[in-house]
Amino acid sequence: MTPFFDRLEAARRERHTTLCVGIDPRLERLPEEIRREAGDDVETLLTRFGYEVLDLVAAHAACVKPQIAFFEAHGLAGLRAYAAVLAEARRRGLPVIGDVKRGDIGSTASAYAAAHLRPGGEFEADAITVNPYLGADALQPFVDAAVEAGKGIYVLVRTSNPGARDLQELHVREDGRLFFEATADLVASLGADSISADTGLSAVGAVVGATAPEAGAALRRRLPATPFLVPGYGAQGATARDVAATHRDDGSGAVVNASRSITFPEAGPGGWRAAVAAAAEHARTELYDASVPA
Amino acid sequence: MTPFFDRLEAARRERHTTLCVGIDPRLERLPEEIRREAGDDVETLLTRFGYEVLDLVAAHAACVKPQIAFFEAHGLAGLRAYAAVLAEARRRGLPVIGDVKRGDIGSTASAYAAAHLRPGGEFEADAITVNPYLGADALQPFVDAAVEAGKGIYVLVRTSNPGARDLQELHVREDGRLFFEATADLVASLGADSISADTGLSAVGAVVGATAPEAGAALRRRLPATPFLVPGYGAQGATARDVAATHRDDGSGAVVNASRSITFPEAGPGGWRAAVAAAAEHARTELYDASVPA
Repeated sequence: MTPFFDRLEAARRERHTTLCVGIDPRLERLPEEIRREAGDDVETLLTRFGYEVLDLVAAHAACVKPQIAFFEAHGLAGLRAYAAVLAEARRRGLPVIGDVKRGDIGSTASAYAAAHLRPGGEFEADAITVNPYLGADALQPFVDAAVEAGKGIYVLVRTSNPGARDLQELHVREDGRLFFEATADLVASLGADSISADTGLSAVGAVVGATAPEAGAALRRRLPATPFLVPGYGAQGATARDVAATHRDDGSGAVVNASRSITFPEAGPGGWRAAVAAAAEHARTELYDASVPA
Repeated sequence: MTPFFDRLEAARRERHTTLCVGIDPRLERLPEEIRREAGDDVETLLTRFGYEVLDLVAAHAACVKPQIAFFEAHGLAGLRAYAAVLAEARRRGLPVIGDVKRGDIGSTASAYAAAHLRPGGEFEADAITVNPYLGADALQPFVDAAVEAGKGIYVLVRTSNPGARDLQELHVREDGRLFFEATADLVASLGADSISADTGLSAVGAVVGATAPEAGAALRRRLPATPFLVPGYGAQGATARDVAATHRDDGSGAVVNASRSITFPEAGPGGWRAAVAAAAEHARTELYDASVPA
């Protein structure tokens, strides 16, 4: 089985896309088209929104990233929709990153890994995001589950929000690293045994926000074998130029997420569907061009 | 409405208990009694286990703490059981901490807060655990939701696992604090506006592992108004003496969690049910005695 991050790299080479489309069904922002056709039932609304986005972006995206929080907010009905969207992405062969940011101590982390990475599970994704605060032993079960199933994980390293400064950007007294660099070094160490002979990418990736371009460039130098998931492009303010340095020299090694700027675009004359497809195509072109060496 | 942490303090004063019983339904460890009566259906097994534990520990526990990962591992069926266990705890008036360790940037954190703290939601708990890696702006939506509903949150500060050393115990170059002390100071700051006139406890608590007693004592001095959730007692090796210093001088301010040592006790002649009730009573007595001033 081809490892997940090798599949993403194949998408970049063959389909010329590094775009990850975030699926964040904020109920209050769902387009009029969906509301009119799907009615008031939350599960139907969320599922329908997810299916539509998959359909509209499939030609442009390397992968999609449903944000489980916007489903979980609606309880069991929301999570049924989450499962349905994951299943539909899988049916289409579209790689899917479960943005779940789970993390807990050893045996509990194993339970989360089973929930989100075990083949056949209702919440099965190709990769998930995880939180490093609890340290290496809390991440290891996710690494093991990912490697075993040819999947991947993305560990939060330097996030895209202003609060990233509160803890992640403190310096470590012992060695002068930034705190997120200490996390990055954990990521490299956890991924060292799973580097693909084909692409040189490990199964342990990193979330590296596009809103701090210098940090992104430094992390790319620090983590040559680490696949990056780069949020912050689009609605959060980062540009295609800001993410360029998160790729390796040959253009590989990163996917860039856009959520709101694609799925809730400015309404145009062609309606929501045309605007989503156009936004995805635009982002794909702009991001791919930024990824390839000059 | 009485704030959650004031209700816990009332339980300590009136019912002489600081015990939090963790409900971690590890499928492979469920007792023969439950398996025989509940059959093979996962949802029935997890629900029945949760109900039984609530029944057996209600007289001894200040609160219960279902670990959502062990439910989530079984997909939608597992989460239906999680919702059922929360509802049953609420029906009994037994305070419930959802051990969910969620965390994400602003609007996504709001969605998680809606999922787990909004009154009337299927996953509604009285308090939840949250992860601080993303910084203050990512925690604020949880604080706001908790304060609004008279609930609480516990922010991971110093966890009970060996990997806590990897990041949490690095020093901050700027000021020499341990990294988890920087997290602790965020917790104090986020909780400063929600200190109860009755108990002096804020709505923003901290997870402080019992396996590092000196850190626990130092954090108690550093965070006089912060309610602690103290894991690590029992199966993880910490003793009642180890947790004593996590209480304030008058004995208030902390609940101590035990999971496996109570719900999966050594089998005795009276069977699983008698062993659970005995383990809960023993832990309650031992922990309460350790909390009260000498």
